[in-house]
Amino acid sequence: MKRSSVKELLESDKFLHEVHVNGWVRTFRSNRFIALNDGSTIKNIQCVVDFENTNEDLLKRITTSAAVSIKGTLVESQGKGQTSEIQVTTLEILGDSNPEEYPIQPKKHSFEFLRENAHLRVRTNTFSAVMRVRSALSFAVHQYFQQNGFYYVNTPIITGSDAEGAGEMFKVTNFEANKAPLNEEGEVDYTQDFFGKETNLTVSGQLEAETYAMALGKVYTFGPTFRAENSNTTRHLAEFWMIEPEVAFNDLDANMDLSEDFIKGVLQYVLDNCKDDLEFLDNRLAQEEKTKPQAERSEMSLIEKLHFVVDNNFKRVSYTEAIDILRNSKPNKKKKFQFPINEWGADLQSEHERFLVEKHFKCPVILFDYPASIKAFYMRLNEDGKTVRAMDVLFPGIGEMVGGSQREERLDVLKEKMEALGIEEEELWWYLDTRKFGTAVHSGFGLGFERLVLFTTGMGNIRDVIPFPRTPQNAEF
Amino acid sequence: MKRSSVKELLESDKFLHEVHVNGWVRTFRSNRFIALNDGSTIKNIQCVVDFENTNEDLLKRITTSAAVSIKGTLVESQGKGQTSEIQVTTLEILGDSNPEEYPIQPKKHSFEFLRENAHLRVRTNTFSAVMRVRSALSFAVHQYFQQNGFYYVNTPIITGSDAEGAGEMFKVTNFEANKAPLNEEGEVDYTQDFFGKETNLTVSGQLEAETYAMALGKVYTFGPTFRAENSNTTRHLAEFWMIEPEVAFNDLDANMDLSEDFIKGVLQYVLDNCKDDLEFLDNRLAQEEKTKPQAERSEMSLIEKLHFVVDNNFKRVSYTEAIDILRNSKPNKKKKFQFPINEWGADLQSEHERFLVEKHFKCPVILFDYPASIKAFYMRLNEDGKTVRAMDVLFPGIGEMVGGSQREERLDVLKEKMEALGIEEEELWWYLDTRKFGTAVHSGFGLGFERLVLFTTGMGNIRDVIPFPRTPQNAEF
Repeated sequence: MKRSSVKELLESDKFLHEVHVNGWVRTFRSNRFIALNDGSTIKNIQCVVDFENTNEDLLKRITTSAAVSIKGTLVESQGKGQTSEIQVTTLEILGDSNPEEYPIQPKKHSFEFLRENAHLRVRTNTFSAVMRVRSALSFAVHQYFQQNGFYYVNTPIITGSDAEGAGEMFKVTNFEANKAPLNEEGEVDYTQDFFGKETNLTVSGQLEAETYAMALGKVYTFGPTFRAENSNTTRHLAEFWMIEPEVAFNDLDANMDLSEDFIKGVLQYVLDNCKDDLEFLDNRLAQEEKTKPQAERSEMSLIEKLHFVVDNNFKRVSYTEAIDILRNSKPNKKKKFQFPINEWGADLQSEHERFLVEKHFKCPVILFDYPASIKAFYMRLNEDGKTVRAMDVLFPGIGEMVGGSQREERLDVLKEKMEALGIEEEELWWYLDTRKFGTAVHSGFGLGFERLVLFTTGMGNIRDVIPFPRTPQNAEF
Repeated sequence: MKRSSVKELLESDKFLHEVHVNGWVRTFRSNRFIALNDGSTIKNIQCVVDFENTNEDLLKRITTSAAVSIKGTLVESQGKGQTSEIQVTTLEILGDSNPEEYPIQPKKHSFEFLRENAHLRVRTNTFSAVMRVRSALSFAVHQYFQQNGFYYVNTPIITGSDAEGAGEMFKVTNFEANKAPLNEEGEVDYTQDFFGKETNLTVSGQLEAETYAMALGKVYTFGPTFRAENSNTTRHLAEFWMIEPEVAFNDLDANMDLSEDFIKGVLQYVLDNCKDDLEFLDNRLAQEEKTKPQAERSEMSLIEKLHFVVDNNFKRVSYTEAIDILRNSKPNKKKKFQFPINEWGADLQSEHERFLVEKHFKCPVILFDYPASIKAFYMRLNEDGKTVRAMDVLFPGIGEMVGGSQREERLDVLKEKMEALGIEEEELWWYLDTRKFGTAVHSGFGLGFERLVLFTTGMGNIRDVIPFPRTPQNAEF
């Protein structure tokens, strides 16, 4: 008999035939009703055991997380909210699960506890829903770009270039700790390391992606990136996945259009394809919100928030306008900001971004044209000589979701910038080549994938939206 | 005026209207005909310049790889093999390309030279075709799995686990070289490193993927993996992308079915979606073949090979049968093998795999049931006590494309295996948990993505199918 998934059986409208399904027991109640799950959907199928004619010892082995193989008859369910269930004919225990030892019991566990059991937490409703949504979002990313004429580029993970400047880097080496060979000058002799030079883990694939955009036109990366920063927050990971599109001939306006259309596109995909998981997560968040004081509760449910983003325009605001708004804002006047906004040129902190997005505009905001002094060397200088064509997309509850810019395509301006910052031309000879040979206006952005998953699932901590989070002092599994 | 891509214009059947296109000059001949490319397709669009009414200085700047913006009238082409061309009205140079300095000239360059210019080689027909096919293959991978009920899982890149045993690992650290702090015993104090322990770059996501398969049922990874092995061959990279599906309740037969169906599915996708690029690569390979002695030439063209794989069953052969075939083969009897096959238990070398695939069966071959002694600890032991449920998929010209197995799901047998090999239980406590709590038959495999790209594009060196290859002594860009 062909084996079916729980999803297939729950969606079936043909009854009274024999079926075969394997899965794990979620609960077993009244010595009769197994809630069976196989990961294909958040929903369980009810399997009704004829306990009067079933061996007592077998019944005892039907415990939470035991793997079972069930054959029986698919029938229309009498129970509320269920379409079908299985009248069990034969039940085989594939793998026992000793309830005395199994760490995940059918009760509420703290997310902290579950993080320590990251190999088992995906067996819970919350984490299985999060990880299915994460998977759907990943696919939506690829589908969006492929349908819009972009090519996927795998930029290098191990990089010999340390000029990206996006953050602290991890070192990659083959040397034994404290046993690196020395050269004649008594310095570490990196020519003897695996790659013959110092290498690090990438913080961004942008510079390499730019070289590909200048040939293939529209490209995107989607791969792991790394930051060796000691940030123990709910928004930072040492290892995270980043999406970086880069488009030849796009200026900053086209770049803003792309970021907005992209985010709306992938959220729409999830709304269309992850109904059951989103409903569960929507309900989970609603329960969590109830534990907060009234004033801190969100005005919208999770699904309402997703629809709101898809259906409304992002607000586009220049840095200069934003500074005016912030300077004149209540929290600034009442000195409630940790970092008061006094003058143009100040770097915006998380508190300012959140005020703009959550209190002032109450929608996603794209800030653009930042002061050159607080942004990276490769961003295109405006005619005013003091701002650059940078953009950040800010999201409620998340902060910065996207950081991007129109790139400086003029060789002379780019070289000046690099010199001013002490970046050696020899380090980035290949990057400069893109400006020497057929340079053109081009733009791109980076989107931290886990922040997108965080927003989409309504989870509160970024460690709970990636299977095995890497953070300071934590690389278990 | 809306800007169009070269692809859109070449596919258009509406003529005599004004169009706008940006791109890079591939060639400029007779002071009149620009072959313009923007990466959207391997094909160039011909842009006809009215040279008699064009400024001489401007004409001189139309050089290979210059970025240009062209407006003009789309007309039906008179030239052979072209559908449409542009009668240029205005031409603007966006970025010059000095022909004296530009490294990639419109002539044949060696792949070695182009590798040193990996940031520019994608501007050639061959590499743009390879990278577009690579992108399409990536998407085909995701689409295949998503359409078949698999969930994408991002297993960790930085791992604290060194028990995977698939190969030499790179170290990841925050310590300065030769300046790692020591503990009271005078040993390197890894508790002070970023993750509080020794960490490495992953060689495989399999063990973590198994924990997810035991909850979500069907999962796959697709991410970078690393081998710190000093292999300077045309088949090895230090950094490469791997695809690893893992399926609960699948035995080895189902695993073989999945690997075969998967490979056929993604190749069919490329045949359906990359016609122009494949035709170019088919022709390129045919030219290359002509330089070889008759006896070494392939009997099939590239596209014929792809169809052959899609249309024919892979041959499934047990290791024991394979040894018999090899022992009695001509090259073995004539002592032509570097490693003669004398007895059961021998590890198969590349020369044996190639003989089986290229000479004996002349089709993809799945070898299964290998001696336990030459395979990994997590593979399921057969009832004979000496073979394991391992499988390798071997491809002509490539060798091992896939390595997989049914996993040892029995806790006691797994522990015995680990003990025999000196793998500490504390290292893999979380892996053992999957066998403690609801264990079940499950299987999976790993497929080296670049080997798939190599086969699909007909290229000869794995360094030419990944944008920025990492190999011993090479991490440029």
